[in-house]
Amino acid sequence: MNLAPTPDSLAVTQPQIQTLAVVGVGLIGGSFAAACREAGIVGRVIGAGRRPETLAQAVALGLIDQAVSLEDAAQQADLIFIAAPVGAFESIFTALAPQLNPRALITDGGSTKQNVIQAARIGLKDRIGQFVPAHPMAGSHEKGPEAANAVLYRGRRVILTPVQENRAQAVERIRAIWQACGANVVLLTPAQHDAMVAAVSHLPHWVAALYMQHLLSGEDADIKFQTAGTGFRDFTRVAQGSAEMWSDIFLANRDAMLHELRGLRQVMDRAEQALESRDEKWLMNMLETAAQARAQWPEKQS
Amino acid sequence: MNLAPTPDSLAVTQPQIQTLAVVGVGLIGGSFAAACREAGIVGRVIGAGRRPETLAQAVALGLIDQAVSLEDAAQQADLIFIAAPVGAFESIFTALAPQLNPRALITDGGSTKQNVIQAARIGLKDRIGQFVPAHPMAGSHEKGPEAANAVLYRGRRVILTPVQENRAQAVERIRAIWQACGANVVLLTPAQHDAMVAAVSHLPHWVAALYMQHLLSGEDADIKFQTAGTGFRDFTRVAQGSAEMWSDIFLANRDAMLHELRGLRQVMDRAEQALESRDEKWLMNMLETAAQARAQWPEKQS
Repeated sequence: MNLAPTPDSLAVTQPQIQTLAVVGVGLIGGSFAAACREAGIVGRVIGAGRRPETLAQAVALGLIDQAVSLEDAAQQADLIFIAAPVGAFESIFTALAPQLNPRALITDGGSTKQNVIQAARIGLKDRIGQFVPAHPMAGSHEKGPEAANAVLYRGRRVILTPVQENRAQAVERIRAIWQACGANVVLLTPAQHDAMVAAVSHLPHWVAALYMQHLLSGEDADIKFQTAGTGFRDFTRVAQGSAEMWSDIFLANRDAMLHELRGLRQVMDRAEQALESRDEKWLMNMLETAAQARAQWPEKQS
Repeated sequence: MNLAPTPDSLAVTQPQIQTLAVVGVGLIGGSFAAACREAGIVGRVIGAGRRPETLAQAVALGLIDQAVSLEDAAQQADLIFIAAPVGAFESIFTALAPQLNPRALITDGGSTKQNVIQAARIGLKDRIGQFVPAHPMAGSHEKGPEAANAVLYRGRRVILTPVQENRAQAVERIRAIWQACGANVVLLTPAQHDAMVAAVSHLPHWVAALYMQHLLSGEDADIKFQTAGTGFRDFTRVAQGSAEMWSDIFLANRDAMLHELRGLRQVMDRAEQALESRDEKWLMNMLETAAQARAQWPEKQS
């Protein structure tokens, strides 16, 4: 048995990138560029995006070497990382497709995957196999290139949701690159991914925002806000996120969200019944189950 | 105009306590005893409670000088602080009433006020004016006398909800004692208090616990828990609280909770409609309102 890798298998699992193009050089894109540099796996970094001042800032901060057009990015890069609002993906794929280097791979930082893949199919057409969808589970309340840092993905989970057109080599190369950035890579189907983020990320944000709305519309809102303590603080922290980004996410992941909302409502209706009928046994059991599950949660990711 | 206080008004606003009796010497009761000692306003501290080993521990820790029966506490103390599950209040008041020192005042740390006042009316009967209901907005996940500390109430809000039978002097004396412990004292009606805590404290706990229940009963629960990050961590933190205590609180504050749940459901139903119909404008507006309100919240209490 020959354990020495063939030149071909070596090539596919090595994370080296000659020219990385980052589309959207904010927190997510800028941190990816910084992490690749820090890992020593990238030669040149170019950046594209909507706002010239953001690109100039990214150059000044050393995150990218040069600002380019999407067409130039498509031609020059052997890896393209898209970190834009998911609503913009279709037009980005459409702009990249005509000039896309046949050896290039594309990956992304989008928070939803089924609709991003749909956008990629429309934009990339028969080049769809060059796109390996990814979702790094990392973020911050801070925004923009100045918030970017090389360690954002270290120890964080990155979920890859390959499409059937991806060659195994392509998936392995993207995995190796994310691992070089310090991430723990796992593979899920796009549907599994979307259901999962709807449940553990989007639903908490949805409920926290609506809870704020509820408080604001009730009586004595001022007294309530003044008296709120640490429970309120933690429960509502996620509601501070960018309205534009989250509206985008909820609409992008609409079906999974509606499914989650129906499930949560069932549990809440049952609990309200128990409270109405003073069913102490049901309440105790529910609260005990919840408290135990939360106490046992390992908090690895946080 | 004579600004010099009369001996009588001096006596009522001074926080000095000859003998403090604490019923329930855990985190809340033990911290009250420690805070009164630290403030130098108390002579002797006696403690009563269900479990002899807890009382022995409180003596060993120096929180109380002696463990006594409820009857002895009623006879000897000029201030009685009740820090027990709200479900136990009626029997405590009933046990205190027959021997209650006519000069003694009673205050408490119960999380709900209307039902505690009802229990006090049943237990204390015509002595009800000696009870000045209070709710210190402070706590911890830690429990028991070993978690008690003299600074728990420092800078925290304490809500007094006087009953009509309270003399103004009695309310001022209780206010002065809490202030000596470092608390910021505010007065609300019992109904205002219960509505407020239902909204900012009990409802978040309720929703966080049911959200956990929902996750546990869904598909891929393991993947979801493994992938959950900081948003999940903060949103669910309150769900770790003691099931016994919270079941007690929800049932004690049942009417206010049901009112809050109806209000929250209205907002959530409206939002689900907006998501179903892809009403981006409504969603953006809602999310922006929530994010701004949360960002402007001063976080004074936390």
